[in-house]
Amino acid sequence: MSGGPARPVDEDVLLARAYLLRVAEPPAPAVSHLVELLGPVEAAERIRSGADLGPHVGAEVGARRQVDRSAVDLAAARALGGRLLVPEDPAWPTTAMAGFAARPGHAEWVAPLALWARGPASVADLATPGGRSVAVVGSRAATAYGLWVARDWSASFADAEVTVVSGAALGIDGAAHRGCLAANGTTVAVLACGIDRAYPPSHGRLLEAIAEQGLVVSEYPVGAVPARHRFLVRNRLIAALATGTLLVETGRRSGAARTALAAQELGRPVLVVPGPVTSALSVGNHAVLRKGYATVVGSAADVLEDLGPITGDPAPDPVDDGPRALTDGLSGSAVRVHGALRSYVPTTVPELARASGVVPGAVPRALDELRDAGLVVPDGERGWSRSV
Amino acid sequence: MSGGPARPVDEDVLLARAYLLRVAEPPAPAVSHLVELLGPVEAAERIRSGADLGPHVGAEVGARRQVDRSAVDLAAARALGGRLLVPEDPAWPTTAMAGFAARPGHAEWVAPLALWARGPASVADLATPGGRSVAVVGSRAATAYGLWVARDWSASFADAEVTVVSGAALGIDGAAHRGCLAANGTTVAVLACGIDRAYPPSHGRLLEAIAEQGLVVSEYPVGAVPARHRFLVRNRLIAALATGTLLVETGRRSGAARTALAAQELGRPVLVVPGPVTSALSVGNHAVLRKGYATVVGSAADVLEDLGPITGDPAPDPVDDGPRALTDGLSGSAVRVHGALRSYVPTTVPELARASGVVPGAVPRALDELRDAGLVVPDGERGWSRSV
Repeated sequence: MSGGPARPVDEDVLLARAYLLRVAEPPAPAVSHLVELLGPVEAAERIRSGADLGPHVGAEVGARRQVDRSAVDLAAARALGGRLLVPEDPAWPTTAMAGFAARPGHAEWVAPLALWARGPASVADLATPGGRSVAVVGSRAATAYGLWVARDWSASFADAEVTVVSGAALGIDGAAHRGCLAANGTTVAVLACGIDRAYPPSHGRLLEAIAEQGLVVSEYPVGAVPARHRFLVRNRLIAALATGTLLVETGRRSGAARTALAAQELGRPVLVVPGPVTSALSVGNHAVLRKGYATVVGSAADVLEDLGPITGDPAPDPVDDGPRALTDGLSGSAVRVHGALRSYVPTTVPELARASGVVPGAVPRALDELRDAGLVVPDGERGWSRSV
Repeated sequence: MSGGPARPVDEDVLLARAYLLRVAEPPAPAVSHLVELLGPVEAAERIRSGADLGPHVGAEVGARRQVDRSAVDLAAARALGGRLLVPEDPAWPTTAMAGFAARPGHAEWVAPLALWARGPASVADLATPGGRSVAVVGSRAATAYGLWVARDWSASFADAEVTVVSGAALGIDGAAHRGCLAANGTTVAVLACGIDRAYPPSHGRLLEAIAEQGLVVSEYPVGAVPARHRFLVRNRLIAALATGTLLVETGRRSGAARTALAAQELGRPVLVVPGPVTSALSVGNHAVLRKGYATVVGSAADVLEDLGPITGDPAPDPVDDGPRALTDGLSGSAVRVHGALRSYVPTTVPELARASGVVPGAVPRALDELRDAGLVVPDGERGWSRSV
């Protein structure tokens, strides 16, 4: 166990959690509960020794319990400049991970046993009032519209000192990381493979840039290959590491919609970028909106507002209560008398009363109001006309 | 009063309501309440005679009570092939107008005293389960996107025998009427001027087509000119005559947003077409969505679904619970074993167990499952590989 927040984590804790991470394919609820009960060192020792720990732990570790590559995995990560983040470390994102514990009905909803990490950024205070973050997710086959929104808004999040979390995939993910990096922000890439791997291969340089300026994290040891089920498991982590999840652009079937659902199950806001109903890549977004748990966002400012209080300015309400006109703010009688006035053609008070339906006695006051607003001028002997 | 649903309305009722419609600029809550109390004939007689009916009625009728043009107005409407629809008439849209009575706190929320109408269509059963209708509204300065949605979806509404109600304005209104007419549907134009007037002038032919195939209605007598406050008053009628209101495309300030608000106040669904966040003409739509009372719609089918039960098919859910893959529907173990298999490279059961984290004893069953799904083939002595 850790000797305290100021001291580094004991090596035996790191070795134990590195062993557990590899021996049990995440998520491993039974092993997680065992660690909660016994601590990581004793839990690892019992599993390694082949002790009977019941059928659930047995099913999770039966395939690999005899493979202890913890020292090799730690050395490989360190050779890359990486490290193992563990719950005993003050750099652990405790608040962000607390969402999992709040889902007792979901056996698989357990926080990771540890996280391999590479890069200078800290995720310690993610999803806290002091360290807001937003997961920016969407389709790989995004359109220019979606890519623009992901990149531009992520730059705005960076400007607002909000960390951008994503999955380093092609399309929306990549655009989000790039927009954040371009604005010198902090971005976190959560991988479904080892932190040494360039996946997708064309994102090798992007991942290097994230590791230099932000953080690359994964539940999988150095060398681990991405596999289909790992992407699904990884998506829950993306949602957990963010104060809220922004769905930028998704088609009919998308893993990003799963990330949004995970965010919702974690009790975090799900924010959705609307798009043209004619775009197949917005169909998924609109479907999520129709489910009722998500909120439309029309700008990066909307997102910042919906993530909760912040030091910046709130998003301006883009719509007034109604149309703005010369006569806004005037009484109903004044508006009606104004409608009865003509430009350059003088109209008398009785004529105005008949045309507007305002009683003759109330017309002079309406005219006074209109004159104060600069909308009417006396015209001729007893007439009035519009000033414009 | 009417002698019954089968008989035409008495001429004195028509004359009384024609007089009241012109003498009191709509909406006229005090006159409406007087009519409820005394009936239209007696209410009109008392007002015409100059009786003291209290300050509220006095304010509403003081300007025009001495002008009785009811016979002229009726004759002018009839000369156009028009008529005066009154609550005593079985053709009156009783259910649609009932929404007003349900707003006791809103003094101005009264149903019209009567409606000038021109065209073969009936509005009798509008906003009832048997006669659904949708108000299609939006900006005059619409984009090609908004015009396409208004026109295309309105044709779909026509196909579903849903009446399209709008305001005959430039932009979205016109596209909605045209789409409905093109599909031989019923469309209702609610005007802020007399049913004889072509306003806007460029919609003269469109209004003629609506009057031939659908219905043109107005609270204002033949010859009445449009005025600013009349558009606002008219918008409440558009919302009232529809089962729900569809906001197609609106900018920062729009009268259409007022119609949506009126629909909401009448307890009718407000449906909103999303658009690109980069479009100034979708800003108003997204702002309405963010207020929380409206629903996103991604297709005409969504709209029909949200209007309530209908004879047609419900809108299909465009998104599954998650991504579709070869391994969808298989057990977690099978998915993991599948991830560990390679194409053309045989892998043994112990190797599969280590790579997938599935206990060795469970691998054969996973392989059986994968073989049933056609995803795995035996390869070599004791190996397995992907079938594709």
